[in-house]
Amino acid sequence: MTEFELISRLIPWLHTNPTVVAGAGDDCAILDLGMLDGLLLLKTDAIVEGVHFTREAGPDKIGHKALARCLSDVAAMAGTPSHALVTIGLPKDFDPAFVEAIYVGLNRLAKRYDVAVAGGETTLNPERIFISVSVLGKVARGKYVLRSGAKPCDAIFVTGELGGSLSGKHLEFEPRVAEGRWLAEHFAIHSMIDVSDGLAGDLRHLLGTRELGAELLASAIPISRAARNKSKGIRIDAGDGVLSAHAAGSKPALLAALTDGEDFELLFTVASQDAVTLLDAWRRHFPELRLSCIGKILSEPGVFLKDKEGVRSLVAHGYVHFA
Amino acid sequence: MTEFELISRLIPWLHTNPTVVAGAGDDCAILDLGMLDGLLLLKTDAIVEGVHFTREAGPDKIGHKALARCLSDVAAMAGTPSHALVTIGLPKDFDPAFVEAIYVGLNRLAKRYDVAVAGGETTLNPERIFISVSVLGKVARGKYVLRSGAKPCDAIFVTGELGGSLSGKHLEFEPRVAEGRWLAEHFAIHSMIDVSDGLAGDLRHLLGTRELGAELLASAIPISRAARNKSKGIRIDAGDGVLSAHAAGSKPALLAALTDGEDFELLFTVASQDAVTLLDAWRRHFPELRLSCIGKILSEPGVFLKDKEGVRSLVAHGYVHFA
Repeated sequence: MTEFELISRLIPWLHTNPTVVAGAGDDCAILDLGMLDGLLLLKTDAIVEGVHFTREAGPDKIGHKALARCLSDVAAMAGTPSHALVTIGLPKDFDPAFVEAIYVGLNRLAKRYDVAVAGGETTLNPERIFISVSVLGKVARGKYVLRSGAKPCDAIFVTGELGGSLSGKHLEFEPRVAEGRWLAEHFAIHSMIDVSDGLAGDLRHLLGTRELGAELLASAIPISRAARNKSKGIRIDAGDGVLSAHAAGSKPALLAALTDGEDFELLFTVASQDAVTLLDAWRRHFPELRLSCIGKILSEPGVFLKDKEGVRSLVAHGYVHFA
Repeated sequence: MTEFELISRLIPWLHTNPTVVAGAGDDCAILDLGMLDGLLLLKTDAIVEGVHFTREAGPDKIGHKALARCLSDVAAMAGTPSHALVTIGLPKDFDPAFVEAIYVGLNRLAKRYDVAVAGGETTLNPERIFISVSVLGKVARGKYVLRSGAKPCDAIFVTGELGGSLSGKHLEFEPRVAEGRWLAEHFAIHSMIDVSDGLAGDLRHLLGTRELGAELLASAIPISRAARNKSKGIRIDAGDGVLSAHAAGSKPALLAALTDGEDFELLFTVASQDAVTLLDAWRRHFPELRLSCIGKILSEPGVFLKDKEGVRSLVAHGYVHFA
């Protein structure tokens, strides 16, 4: 059983109350606690040594990643993060200087986004460092964006470039907080998610269990330089379309962009008639950050990839933690 | 370095902002997000297999404990919990039925306190189950109670009975949410904490770095039946006052009550002139739950234990996770 199957089995019977606007199954929980100016966002996430990082990454980048993942989830709701708590599980013989440097990296990012690090806990996790971060944020009423609002014919957009994150970006990425908020302030964003499990996987999360599909344009997928570099020398066997070289776990750059995961870019949809206006406004407002229109939402289930040879069904899934 | 030393080294330089009323170093963070009717409480805590529980405990009790610890912290601020998120680290070969049953136990407690389980994450923690819970709560403005408000001559109270929690209570305890709130509504509670590290240790947390001390009355410490049963057959060597029997890790019942930890009772102080009124009102309102006045706050540092033989300095510390 994968984590996704487990979660979808649990969600239906977990206790809820009328203050929960959106709960399990979105990037953050949205809570209405009677604030005049907005709704609360609450998110928790964890990174684990040997799974999401190794100590060789350097402690400050580990701390950065632990917080940045949660900030990315707040960004995907078009929210503004405000507070964080950190619970860290440590082996008995932990190195205080290393742990302090984890907090230095985390705190540097927190300061930049004015996120108060308001507490936390330490505990024993004998074999590996385990960092669980909770983040609280705010979003204006009526301005939050769910995963689930995609409509047929919507244009699909993604920020930045995808693939190859493990060669470095996953430890240093900038959460797209300003971008997410700007999008919701200026356009009717129908659905949004941050790309953590890979474009292909997160696109499926966006479509959810609804009778919707998506068609991606292969030439429009923004492939990162890291994914291109990593794939050099990889060729596709002309005969059966299967990879001819698996050296060093490499894959073709396009496949990497579709499935690598940990990109922490924003994937969102808007009505197709807004697409050009949005692209124009984006380029004026965020000239440094690429925005790509990569396809459209279909009214039939299935994810398809269109290239010069035709339309193929996309079977590659995103990264599944317990696969 | 212990976790307490690590945390106290980190706290001074962590980023904060004006919305943080109380941050790291108390049972919960208190945040002012502009709600008309109160302040927010935010808490995160984790329990780890082999450290805080074993699988033999049964999954529903493990889930209960994971959430109850956070609710106990909300209780210690005189707050009301409202939402929880659960992040769970699991070995690769996790048993879905076992994990689901953890959520059953957690959800049962959540339902009883109307705490919405609004999401969470699962991740890989190869060697052991790691459950991190975040809880959001509310407290009326001016009604929250900090750890740090004790005054000289305050009477020291503790709810319930202490010691021997590991024989069962630590998996089944009821967080003192109604009690904490009632106390703050009806009395000027100067300081409060939940007893998780042992009475002796948490009393020191209450005194903090301030120039205060405490004198406990040995005969007033409410010793649990579990602590008494466990200590049967233990005698103190008359010669040098050192334990004569260490069989099965046992200790004298009084020492167990002072140092075992995981009691999750409320330890609080009020002005001595309020002590009798409070005890009377408590007995009418909570006839089932013992409340004991166990000593007083001193204006000089040090923790002392008074018994029929005199006043002794109490050197026994609470449980220190990385000792």
